[in-house]
Amino acid sequence: MPYDLTLSREIAASPATVWRCLTEPELLKQWFAPRPVTITKLELDPTPGGIWLLAMDIPEMGVMEEPAGCVLIAEPEKRIAWTSALGPGFRPNAVKTGEMDFPLTAIMEIEATATGCRYTATALHASEADMKKHEAMGFHDGWGQVADQLKEMAEAGL
Amino acid sequence: MPYDLTLSREIAASPATVWRCLTEPELLKQWFAPRPVTITKLELDPTPGGIWLLAMDIPEMGVMEEPAGCVLIAEPEKRIAWTSALGPGFRPNAVKTGEMDFPLTAIMEIEATATGCRYTATALHASEADMKKHEAMGFHDGWGQVADQLKEMAEAGL
Repeated sequence: MPYDLTLSREIAASPATVWRCLTEPELLKQWFAPRPVTITKLELDPTPGGIWLLAMDIPEMGVMEEPAGCVLIAEPEKRIAWTSALGPGFRPNAVKTGEMDFPLTAIMEIEATATGCRYTATALHASEADMKKHEAMGFHDGWGQVADQLKEMAEAGL
Repeated sequence: MPYDLTLSREIAASPATVWRCLTEPELLKQWFAPRPVTITKLELDPTPGGIWLLAMDIPEMGVMEEPAGCVLIAEPEKRIAWTSALGPGFRPNAVKTGEMDFPLTAIMEIEATATGCRYTATALHASEADMKKHEAMGFHDGWGQVADQLKEMAEAGL
């Protein structure tokens, strides 16, 4: 689809295992930031309207915490989606107009395969310009690296 | 809750009837704009991720069409919610920064009562400033008048 960035990985682990990695904060914390970035805070209530909150410690930049986002879809072992445009309870988030700001919806999907499952992450943007900002910020490197970290963790067993 | 505007009406009609008024475009068109404003276009797919689109013809101002919004919650005979911050499929909408622009989530709820049901409409805003903009634009008059129109229509039978 236009304005989307997407990537996927084949993972030799069950959809149930990958679902746990996508929804249990203690597991997510271990893979959802590209090393050496670390996650200092992660709150996730995997139900529609639930909180999605992340703070990361980026070497030489310090701790970055975004306003809380909102879970939109949570279908166990299938997909979870959240957006930065809304906060918990679907309340709109304040509009940000910085040069590198853009609203984002993320969809993480799991499809069962003969050897485990396929994980697909998609970032939805409002416009081509926003998508290009996200690409310039390193979507493929960053989201790609964390997808590899997810694969490694899920395949090692929990 | 802070930043919310809300109002409710007792309606002598079943939750099923009010649900139809809230979700069937041909019925919604008849009450969801304060007369003499008329609705020239209304698209609604009452499922999470579905479209919410409205165009109104306002006397002496002309036709006003907002970007399509997104349905967030649809629980038959209980509640429907949509937001202007996202478009169909949960894609973020482009950020608007006009003086009177603000993102909005609307929740319309139905509770069964001994004599029919209670209808409650709530508008969620990102901030007190946005709430005040919405109040200044006539939330209570506008949403109040359409709630009266809904009541009248549902009580007359469909």
